[in-house]
Amino acid sequence: MPKQNAFYAQSGGVTSVINASACGVIETARANKKEIGKVYAGNNGIIGALREELIDTSKESAKTIAALRHTPSGAFGSCRYKLKSLEENRAEYERLIEVFKAHNIGYFFYNGGGDSADTCLKVSQLSETMGYPIQAIHVPKTVDNDLPHTDCSPGFGSVAKYVAVSTREAGLDVASMCDTSTKVFILEVMGRHAGWIAAAGGLARDSEDAPPHIILFPEIAFDKAKFLKKVNRTVKKYGYCVVVASEGTQDKEGNFIADAGSKDAFGHTQLGGVAPTLATMVKDELGYKYHWAVADYLQRAARHIASATDVEQAYAVGKAAVEFALAGKNAVMPCIVRKKSKRYSWSIGEAPLEEIANVEKMMPRNYIDKEGFNISKAGFEYLSPLIQGEDYPPFKNGLPQYAKLKKVFVEKKLKKAFKV
Amino acid sequence: MPKQNAFYAQSGGVTSVINASACGVIETARANKKEIGKVYAGNNGIIGALREELIDTSKESAKTIAALRHTPSGAFGSCRYKLKSLEENRAEYERLIEVFKAHNIGYFFYNGGGDSADTCLKVSQLSETMGYPIQAIHVPKTVDNDLPHTDCSPGFGSVAKYVAVSTREAGLDVASMCDTSTKVFILEVMGRHAGWIAAAGGLARDSEDAPPHIILFPEIAFDKAKFLKKVNRTVKKYGYCVVVASEGTQDKEGNFIADAGSKDAFGHTQLGGVAPTLATMVKDELGYKYHWAVADYLQRAARHIASATDVEQAYAVGKAAVEFALAGKNAVMPCIVRKKSKRYSWSIGEAPLEEIANVEKMMPRNYIDKEGFNISKAGFEYLSPLIQGEDYPPFKNGLPQYAKLKKVFVEKKLKKAFKV
Repeated sequence: MPKQNAFYAQSGGVTSVINASACGVIETARANKKEIGKVYAGNNGIIGALREELIDTSKESAKTIAALRHTPSGAFGSCRYKLKSLEENRAEYERLIEVFKAHNIGYFFYNGGGDSADTCLKVSQLSETMGYPIQAIHVPKTVDNDLPHTDCSPGFGSVAKYVAVSTREAGLDVASMCDTSTKVFILEVMGRHAGWIAAAGGLARDSEDAPPHIILFPEIAFDKAKFLKKVNRTVKKYGYCVVVASEGTQDKEGNFIADAGSKDAFGHTQLGGVAPTLATMVKDELGYKYHWAVADYLQRAARHIASATDVEQAYAVGKAAVEFALAGKNAVMPCIVRKKSKRYSWSIGEAPLEEIANVEKMMPRNYIDKEGFNISKAGFEYLSPLIQGEDYPPFKNGLPQYAKLKKVFVEKKLKKAFKV
Repeated sequence: MPKQNAFYAQSGGVTSVINASACGVIETARANKKEIGKVYAGNNGIIGALREELIDTSKESAKTIAALRHTPSGAFGSCRYKLKSLEENRAEYERLIEVFKAHNIGYFFYNGGGDSADTCLKVSQLSETMGYPIQAIHVPKTVDNDLPHTDCSPGFGSVAKYVAVSTREAGLDVASMCDTSTKVFILEVMGRHAGWIAAAGGLARDSEDAPPHIILFPEIAFDKAKFLKKVNRTVKKYGYCVVVASEGTQDKEGNFIADAGSKDAFGHTQLGGVAPTLATMVKDELGYKYHWAVADYLQRAARHIASATDVEQAYAVGKAAVEFALAGKNAVMPCIVRKKSKRYSWSIGEAPLEEIANVEKMMPRNYIDKEGFNISKAGFEYLSPLIQGEDYPPFKNGLPQYAKLKKVFVEKKLKKAFKV
């Protein structure tokens, strides 16, 4: 069989290390030129395949590809676009096959989270459903850390480190001024349904009295009276109170406490504004001076303070994806396996895509303490290894130097455009 | 004359390098033990002097004092408290003299911004007004960069670096997803009356099309129609638009576009919420999907990404303050002098406090481009040297290790408490 090309695409919300996975895929493919042809990256994810907008990564220098390892965001463009089922939109699958055929694509590497795993799974079934032989491997990525099977999701460790570092730093700021100024500080972080990111704030706490004093998890129903009582007690005891609040904080009926009203392409509610909502409660009911921050994209783009462990794992799953493909595998995802040892160590495992697509891994209840306002020892022990190590990008003129791709597009071979 | 002790206090909003100035003061005093006795730090700023709550810095190890150089926030506590005039509150000045006398304090080092310089000036006049001989030296500090005389204010360079780095990183994030997701991203930064911090976002821009596409300065009256037109044109041209907005963004009547209503101890309006306000405008008028972030304390506490230049300057002004005192000076402030050379270099100068107290240095209009939505070449050339160099704190277990003081209080000698 003549060697085939590979398609690689980034999907869903980007992270500060998804390009490290791209680097792992491309470098490993380059190291196996006998088996794999070129790696074509989808311009803006799967949409790039549908539109036949393929970026020829072979036109990028080894230096540029290596620089992807320290570059945040999706260098090839990402998208929020989920393939419909074969029954609902057969035309999309026919188009994909047309494009794959036209460019001799036999490997499909999809770098995304749970929603994207569903797309990858559908592509992996193309040989069965549409008679086009392809091997589809999912490369895990999500700041939400909600992928099942894998011990953690690449992208999470770095956002966790950002949140822990920021909580520690802002906590010192508030502590130093609380006597005459701000008494309550609220940091809003990401995490729609799972409290993993908010939980990471708890890593900043190195003593009983250290911030964060309160973490609000989506898993624990928000109880306004209980929250305000805890804030008040904390201010009385320590002089100030630092709160890390998940954007997904919700009441016991499941209503988000700050619902911006709009929805994204996957039908998820667009959130934002938990911090000001909570701050207003504190001001109205307790009268304390407050400040609040919403980290938003800063947290998932902060490559400058990425976790070295996370970077290594992101690279490793990209590398493993290519190795899996070379081993003839299909419909699988490399995952991170935590070894049972005292000192943290990990290896790469393998999980079937069927058990990953659209499944959200929630945070175990025992990672949260009894009161529900902080992480437990078990939670700390799970989270702490994931933020270990610094992996600073190179700086020039005071600013991080991130990869700039040439983005040479592969010549289109199909006459028909495809409307996405 | 027997040697006298020194009083050091931190005042106003803290920064990620104010402790580097404290380190400069204390280490330099320790190096001049023949002339200066102990350095007593005010617990929570000048309030510590009024309450006779003095922290004996001689009880801290050399290692701990050295660690202040890489520790953000005010390690001894800061305050927002301005001495009234002698006529309005003579009792405060009498109390200060009582405390200074009781603890043999002849040097007063006050680490703060323009409001604090006013307090320092009043203390410097105590020999004249109240017959108590004291030398008062102001140590410049403010993230707002609005102190006159000095080329820049220690604390600003690091917040500038944080804002520039964050803008670059978040900009890449938005660019990579704009095809199917967020088109407009707004980062709100500090800067009540001067746009220095917002301007620093402009350093992220390394090409015509790179973010930030729009900077909103307090100096340029906000014109909603013009703003929305620029946003729309940018999205049409580049696919996305990144906005860095100063919290002090105001219309031509001088009304802040987001006024939270409350005021701080200095009578300044407490701001917040410019980003969501702008985002709502964009959504309502243009219909684009948006995201917004409010960096708040994160920006001024982010010691992990401090500017090495800023850290050096913060240390140098602390050191110089002690040297000024030893040279018999009073009512002055060491300042940063930019040398007239092609390659950036600086030295320490001296400025009279009278010309600093309560004076705000605005950003020159020529630092902003003609259209008013970005910095000019002159602005870039002024700002760029201030963010040069990285000065990472030590990390342990994935987190920065910041100084922890023992805070041994000096035994009180006065019987009467003083109510602040």
